[in-house]
Amino acid sequence: MSLLTSHTLKLLEISLIEDIGSGDITTDSLIPSGLMAKGTIIAKSELVLAGLEVAQAVFHRLDPSLSFRALSKDSSRLKRGDRIAAIQGKARPILTGERLALNFLQRLSGIATLTAEYVRQVQGYKVEILDTRKTTPGWRQLEKYAVTVGGGKNHRFNLSQGVLIKNNHLALVGGVREAIRIARQNIPPLMKIEVEVRDLAQVKEAIEASAEVIMLDNMSGQEMTEAVKYIAGRAWVEASGAINADNIRAVAQTGINFISLGRLTHSAPAVDIHMLVEKT
Amino acid sequence: MSLLTSHTLKLLEISLIEDIGSGDITTDSLIPSGLMAKGTIIAKSELVLAGLEVAQAVFHRLDPSLSFRALSKDSSRLKRGDRIAAIQGKARPILTGERLALNFLQRLSGIATLTAEYVRQVQGYKVEILDTRKTTPGWRQLEKYAVTVGGGKNHRFNLSQGVLIKNNHLALVGGVREAIRIARQNIPPLMKIEVEVRDLAQVKEAIEASAEVIMLDNMSGQEMTEAVKYIAGRAWVEASGAINADNIRAVAQTGINFISLGRLTHSAPAVDIHMLVEKT
Amino acid sequence: MSLLTSHTLKLLEISLIEDIGSGDITTDSLIPSGLMAKGTIIAKSELVLAGLEVAQAVFHRLDPSLSFRALSKDSSRLKRGDRIAAIQGKARPILTGERLALNFLQRLSGIATLTAEYVRQVQGYKVEILDTRKTTPGWRQLEKYAVTVGGGKNHRFNLSQGVLIKNNHLALVGGVREAIRIARQNIPPLMKIEVEVRDLAQVKEAIEASAEVIMLDNMSGQEMTEAVKYIAGRAWVEASGAINADNIRAVAQTGINFISLGRLTHSAPAVDIHMLVEKT
Amino acid sequence: MSLLTSHTLKLLEISLIEDIGSGDITTDSLIPSGLMAKGTIIAKSELVLAGLEVAQAVFHRLDPSLSFRALSKDSSRLKRGDRIAAIQGKARPILTGERLALNFLQRLSGIATLTAEYVRQVQGYKVEILDTRKTTPGWRQLEKYAVTVGGGKNHRFNLSQGVLIKNNHLALVGGVREAIRIARQNIPPLMKIEVEVRDLAQVKEAIEASAEVIMLDNMSGQEMTEAVKYIAGRAWVEASGAINADNIRAVAQTGINFISLGRLTHSAPAVDIHMLVEKT
Amino acid sequence: MSLLTSHTLKLLEISLIEDIGSGDITTDSLIPSGLMAKGTIIAKSELVLAGLEVAQAVFHRLDPSLSFRALSKDSSRLKRGDRIAAIQGKARPILTGERLALNFLQRLSGIATLTAEYVRQVQGYKVEILDTRKTTPGWRQLEKYAVTVGGGKNHRFNLSQGVLIKNNHLALVGGVREAIRIARQNIPPLMKIEVEVRDLAQVKEAIEASAEVIMLDNMSGQEMTEAVKYIAGRAWVEASGAINADNIRAVAQTGINFISLGRLTHSAPAVDIHMLVEKT
Amino acid sequence: MSLLTSHTLKLLEISLIEDIGSGDITTDSLIPSGLMAKGTIIAKSELVLAGLEVAQAVFHRLDPSLSFRALSKDSSRLKRGDRIAAIQGKARPILTGERLALNFLQRLSGIATLTAEYVRQVQGYKVEILDTRKTTPGWRQLEKYAVTVGGGKNHRFNLSQGVLIKNNHLALVGGVREAIRIARQNIPPLMKIEVEVRDLAQVKEAIEASAEVIMLDNMSGQEMTEAVKYIAGRAWVEASGAINADNIRAVAQTGINFISLGRLTHSAPAVDIHMLVEKT
Repeated sequence: MSLLTSHTLKLLEISLIEDIGSGDITTDSLIPSGLMAKGTIIAKSELVLAGLEVAQAVFHRLDPSLSFRALSKDSSRLKRGDRIAAIQGKARPILTGERLALNFLQRLSGIATLTAEYVRQVQGYKVEILDTRKTTPGWRQLEKYAVTVGGGKNHRFNLSQGVLIKNNHLALVGGVREAIRIARQNIPPLMKIEVEVRDLAQVKEAIEASAEVIMLDNMSGQEMTEAVKYIAGRAWVEASGAINADNIRAVAQTGINFISLGRLTHSAPAVDIHMLVEKT
Repeated sequence: MSLLTSHTLKLLEISLIEDIGSGDITTDSLIPSGLMAKGTIIAKSELVLAGLEVAQAVFHRLDPSLSFRALSKDSSRLKRGDRIAAIQGKARPILTGERLALNFLQRLSGIATLTAEYVRQVQGYKVEILDTRKTTPGWRQLEKYAVTVGGGKNHRFNLSQGVLIKNNHLALVGGVREAIRIARQNIPPLMKIEVEVRDLAQVKEAIEASAEVIMLDNMSGQEMTEAVKYIAGRAWVEASGAINADNIRAVAQTGINFISLGRLTHSAPAVDIHMLVEKT
Repeated sequence: MSLLTSHTLKLLEISLIEDIGSGDITTDSLIPSGLMAKGTIIAKSELVLAGLEVAQAVFHRLDPSLSFRALSKDSSRLKRGDRIAAIQGKARPILTGERLALNFLQRLSGIATLTAEYVRQVQGYKVEILDTRKTTPGWRQLEKYAVTVGGGKNHRFNLSQGVLIKNNHLALVGGVREAIRIARQNIPPLMKIEVEVRDLAQVKEAIEASAEVIMLDNMSGQEMTEAVKYIAGRAWVEASGAINADNIRAVAQTGINFISLGRLTHSAPAVDIHMLVEKT
Repeated sequence: MSLLTSHTLKLLEISLIEDIGSGDITTDSLIPSGLMAKGTIIAKSELVLAGLEVAQAVFHRLDPSLSFRALSKDSSRLKRGDRIAAIQGKARPILTGERLALNFLQRLSGIATLTAEYVRQVQGYKVEILDTRKTTPGWRQLEKYAVTVGGGKNHRFNLSQGVLIKNNHLALVGGVREAIRIARQNIPPLMKIEVEVRDLAQVKEAIEASAEVIMLDNMSGQEMTEAVKYIAGRAWVEASGAINADNIRAVAQTGINFISLGRLTHSAPAVDIHMLVEKT
Repeated sequence: MSLLTSHTLKLLEISLIEDIGSGDITTDSLIPSGLMAKGTIIAKSELVLAGLEVAQAVFHRLDPSLSFRALSKDSSRLKRGDRIAAIQGKARPILTGERLALNFLQRLSGIATLTAEYVRQVQGYKVEILDTRKTTPGWRQLEKYAVTVGGGKNHRFNLSQGVLIKNNHLALVGGVREAIRIARQNIPPLMKIEVEVRDLAQVKEAIEASAEVIMLDNMSGQEMTEAVKYIAGRAWVEASGAINADNIRAVAQTGINFISLGRLTHSAPAVDIHMLVEKT
Repeated sequence: MSLLTSHTLKLLEISLIEDIGSGDITTDSLIPSGLMAKGTIIAKSELVLAGLEVAQAVFHRLDPSLSFRALSKDSSRLKRGDRIAAIQGKARPILTGERLALNFLQRLSGIATLTAEYVRQVQGYKVEILDTRKTTPGWRQLEKYAVTVGGGKNHRFNLSQGVLIKNNHLALVGGVREAIRIARQNIPPLMKIEVEVRDLAQVKEAIEASAEVIMLDNMSGQEMTEAVKYIAGRAWVEASGAINADNIRAVAQTGINFISLGRLTHSAPAVDIHMLVEKT
């Protein structure tokens, strides 16, 4: 599916309205409407590129006659100075769209770049880096896409795409075993059940109740290793909570299948990208 | 104006749709529809709080009968363990709304916290910390609000709220003097003109053309000091570009009026906030 | 989750606009705006009721001050003459909303009634009646709800809520085994895989490739019995295609776990419900 | 006017969102994005075709580059095996759009087929088959179109397109004569008045008050014949209520001008149509 | 039906967004958020009031807690200085909503005032003043309402609410008789046919073809008198085109039934209304 | 920026829906769907043309295959009989779109024509004619555009595009000096401050508080002359209130910089434009 689903198009429209308001006074008062120009988008730091299709859509919404030529592609690793895309046509829409297109590219590439860094750190282990639902509201689809561009894998897209019994659910239902039993009765046939656990006792309950995926929340490396050994392939194992650049390799070593990281999407710093405009 | 403008409400609706999809299977299959509960939102790190009104709106959109009681307020400085709000009512909407409410709070408080840190660093100087248009697309209003919560001040909201002639405009128009002259003829009577300059020669042109605000882009401390001295109150002066925790105090010392920082909004890391749910 | 999600509310709004147009000329020209009345909704045939919440929403959108009192509830089995609900207040919105409220009730109760009939026919067998994606476009949520009201169970809500490899996929990918292998690599951890098969050879491939659910499409009773025996609990088994009142009990006897029926939603006839209005 | 009015496009968009959710996981995980294919839509039962334009729109919304070639046209009478349309292009959007396109075609063709059957049954009489406002909420325009495709004629589109005084109005206003008198004073000059009556006394009142159309509701054949004789061309006569395949010819014989049937739209069973996909 | 249909609410929302933009800077920077005030809306010229419900809706959309007390009502004839409404509550939303509320009131009251003037001029004749489809795009419902407030009557609401064969239709179809014949075959049973004619020959054709309404377009008083005499009650007669304050009484004298006036809605000058705000 | 922003497109969509309803019965019942025609839009009075792009958009929304050829252009001064545009293609959408396209053109050209008249009257003086926020709700962008077409200049677009302290603000804040002082502290750096004053004392306060623009509200020519003399270039001066064709030249003579006129947008009468359709 293209990135430009009806959802993304709605975010794009909101974004254009909020940035343009009643018009780009600076550009409209300075630049003759017929003046032609060329804008070149350029990386100002090392980065993994993500979001070209959205940047292009920004310019095409402003002026369908602009030519947008990609000079790199999503998932490319760029260094400072590499050219990303060239836009040619009327100067006004190029100038008006610049900031919004860059805002999309800088954020999505920031996420791809950070994801790629974590993927690199666990290289050699059979573990996959997962995202979470801790995405920027309104940006779920774009940010989950950027994670895959960086080499990560997507966890469930939203609350309807899988059962994940968390600690707050357990607090109301009474225990891992009981929760899995109730859920099993009520869910559609194509759904697996994942449960979040905090100690080995809960891991055992989960396995006995046939959970398909077990999330080890905030466990020590030692506990995780024991849990993986006990589970022994009877369920997928996911590690989550307080994992960062310092300890991720140790976590990978425990043998778990997935490491999920909220920070991929809620705290990835923007990478630096700019645009140079010249007459044509 | 309340934060909950039609724009914010649209973002909120998109966010609910993207996170809930066709329903929260986990909660709906586990939790009886009549079960009552209480959720407490708690800070897990030091932070400046922002976004309570949006968090409340998330829960009220899911179930207008939920009681949402604020236990802190926006702009409060909290420490780990401080309680932020208590939500009481049906357990299902509390669990379903948890993640989205936290996603809003964590991001907005992250921005307020980072802004407050920069404001603290320039204390003692007569300088104001400004945001930019480098906000998350769709979030302009929320993020600019969070900046004010952290003690910063808002630059123009969008392209229609002020004239800011940037380098790319100059490249097409031919020079600072000429650009200001053309703009002056075409803009509404209530608009000031700001121009981005890169050296002292441009500063002089700007002053001679009566620019009301001058943005010193990526200048050294030495150059900024000279520029401020030359300008001598004839225009407001804004410093921008490559300013960070290491050099911000030096920049403030030059006597400029404003420091604008894209990173307040495009790179503020989320702060850690969670929710505990219990039966009532 | 309430039936009145943002999606259902959008369908409701479209429906009001299409039925009212620029105004109910008959009612507005005949009935004084202050006249009060009472409308009683009554079953005119045997039925299983579904959709009360939507009927109520129709009247409340037209006039929030109308009192809507349910006299039956969803999933009740009613006979001709049973009263369903009473609406009191201004006569105009009661008359204007009548047809739309009944259109919702008649269709949803029709689906619940037909589903209940199929559920009754397989009583005594450990089989569940499932719906499909063959719902009325725009009505997915309402119709799937009506199926559960009738005692059926929901299959996946949409294309993002589970993997179901159908014959047309197989035609392009090359075979059951290959298809399951490729899908397994690419899907999120919480997804199961279902595959549609047409003969015993494909059943074996599916089991060897560890499909979690197997759909027997248009198989004879004999073939289904063999398939179930071969599968022996290693996967869930779903029967689909050309199942109707005449053969459903035979299908249930084969030991399959699920029977899915497009006709529950695409061909359920409306049940007969009307409203009587009187002065108050 | 094309079927694809802004209303139909909104229904189409809602339908795509509800069926695709966050993406077609099966297709996206199995089928390479560049793979090309051809889908052929084929009738699996006898039917009168309706809705080709909507089916085409489904595929074009998913991928404007798909080629959609109609092989039959709306109002054609098809037999099992007849080809309806061929779609060529990328395999992914063909597979993703299949179910929704078929859901539209099966329902609309079902209505056209049932209408054609009733039209056939009254052949030889000067009577027209009319639809009602008992359409599927959200589908008014599409279903009324399908009725005309089947040879029926449309009654008023909605509450603003004609005055139809029904029994519930009479209950509040006090009688046929009085109701027609009041309505006549208040309606725009281009509006006729129709009134629903239940016995001959009301027919006389209606004629004396110059009703332009009289609806005979649930009358016996004997009563209808008398009514038609009494009216003698002074108003159009419409028969309504409890008319079905068994008695429709007898109703037609009474000499009435119109027979209106709710079941054309609220209870037409879907006809069977499927799609075969193959590599190209 | 209330004025506040979903259509009017959409216009209201668009209007608020376009006038407020990213916020009322003047009010928000000057007025403390807790300051309470009272605004009084006052007529500054003679006028017939229309639109109170919309004015109230403007303030309630900005702040549901504002108290809006009507001091006059729609269709009241006011003189300079008469008080229209009082709004009490927070000062900010009163100031922010002032202009938009007045813009609605001034335009709608302008239309009601002009309509009342034309109605006054034809007093004593059995003729009704009609509006046309020459309304401000987006305002059809509001403006047609204002016409009725002024004592006029509504012609068809839109293109679906009646058949009006105009000169441009005739140019393509070939003549009055032929056009009426074709239309009669194709329209729903509740529709009348009106035809626009320019001379007596066409009037005769129209009568012979049983047109229900005849519009005399741009005819002289002499011709109109003859036409009315010839028609002799066999159809309604509407006069249209180039009718103004100077000749309307003469037109009324010809005995026609309706006079339609585009200027009621496309050229009514706004009346003068203002608001005074004071502390409370 | 093109006139066809997302805002204008929304107004256009609302307008089409309100005028077409469920379909153009007259045209659809009379005109064969394949008939081709040509429509010519012609001025029926002297006018300054504005709005061609919107008229074209009306026809293209109805049928993208229509050819729309402009024969004049916006800001042209036309006389009776001059041709404005020619539309060729299917007859149906030409007839259906005629009224809406004309409604846009007549209103916008009416505003441009009236503005041009006022601009003509002040010729020879260094004064500019400004619009106000007294525009038709929903039409801000279109009407402000029409003002520029007529030679006028735009005041602030909305409440977020400039600070204008009006009498009602002063009533709550306490005085010109105090109001300007408070506003100055709170507004973004690119905003100027305008204040509305009623006498010379307030003018002096405004100058002492360094207001950038001063609006003289309802002052006599004598007072205005004194005010301008006192201000002596230290602020821009705007005259407003009760200015019309009789006194505008006298106002211009006082030396003020701007004259703002609400009547340009709230009371400009529509100009007369029609369309002739013929077969091709």
